[in-house]
Amino acid sequence: MNHKDMVIKVQQQMPAKRWNHTLGVMQTAEKLALRFGADVNKALIAATLHDMCKHWPVEQQAEAIRESGEWLDILDYDKQLWHAHAGAYVAARDCEVTDPEILDAIRYHTSGREHMTLLDKVVCLADYIEPGRDFPGVVHMRELAEHSLEEALIAGFDGTIQFLIEKKQIIYPLTVLTRNDLIKEIKLKQQEVIE
Amino acid sequence: MNHKDMVIKVQQQMPAKRWNHTLGVMQTAEKLALRFGADVNKALIAATLHDMCKHWPVEQQAEAIRESGEWLDILDYDKQLWHAHAGAYVAARDCEVTDPEILDAIRYHTSGREHMTLLDKVVCLADYIEPGRDFPGVVHMRELAEHSLEEALIAGFDGTIQFLIEKKQIIYPLTVLTRNDLIKEIKLKQQEVIE
Repeated sequence: MNHKDMVIKVQQQMPAKRWNHTLGVMQTAEKLALRFGADVNKALIAATLHDMCKHWPVEQQAEAIRESGEWLDILDYDKQLWHAHAGAYVAARDCEVTDPEILDAIRYHTSGREHMTLLDKVVCLADYIEPGRDFPGVVHMRELAEHSLEEALIAGFDGTIQFLIEKKQIIYPLTVLTRNDLIKEIKLKQQEVIE
Repeated sequence: MNHKDMVIKVQQQMPAKRWNHTLGVMQTAEKLALRFGADVNKALIAATLHDMCKHWPVEQQAEAIRESGEWLDILDYDKQLWHAHAGAYVAARDCEVTDPEILDAIRYHTSGREHMTLLDKVVCLADYIEPGRDFPGVVHMRELAEHSLEEALIAGFDGTIQFLIEKKQIIYPLTVLTRNDLIKEIKLKQQEVIE
């Protein structure tokens, strides 16, 4: 499926506000890909499709996850995480996406994962900081994103964890593992610079 | 080994300030055990021994963990967590403690664990709120501890996670799993009351 058809398909499945968010993520993912040397075309496709299932009824999202047979344990966690896994499956099933890098970037755009790829980071960060976002801390994240994907993402995950603590909600363990892993990655890079 | 000999043995291995902390944990664990119906004698023994290895050189703590053959992956995490696992092993090896409930309460007094026992909770919370502690939030934890071990512990773990975020340090995943599990436990209890 070409990109134009993906755009039409995605836009049909969400209200205008979410489509504006998707446009913002596409624009930001492109900019970040250029800035940090990721594949711009892959970033654009993953950004286009990342929230495809976000406005599906949750039972339909769960059904897609069950049909995929992968990551079934996500169904025990916050429903906010489901659309990413459903999205990765539906991108392959309905949009002819076969590139595992693109599918992973969709799958992990909300939680992150350990050992995130450059593309994972670009799409996940674009989702956090696209121009339509206005949560506390987003300005600081945009500043960090000028020079470091990792520092900006850590700030984002820290904010997410703090938000969940304030709301007395469950923290998805993978988010913590991702944050820890990014901290280790930065420390390792700093050591390499010193040595 | 009787309790008096344990007291002598532990006191020898730490500076006066840490011994005062241990006395505080013993006193608080006894009080909490009485308040929430835990075994007072077991709480007292676990509290007495919980920090036995805290002032050992870290390499000696690591050696005890390696000798125990258990929980070796803890050596990849913050050294602050090691003394609890070393302590559980040394309590059995050198102090003739055979009761697994006491040994577990020592082992998990810093991180907690999923499905904490009543004794685990008493010792872990006593360690957080003994009279010598004065970190931000301890007064609130003591208030919560008047009626709920779980609520007080969640507040403690939330504070620990927030402290680690501020310090840009790794968060031990088990601490997050423990916190999530305690939140689920409270929700389940509330549902049982409603039904």
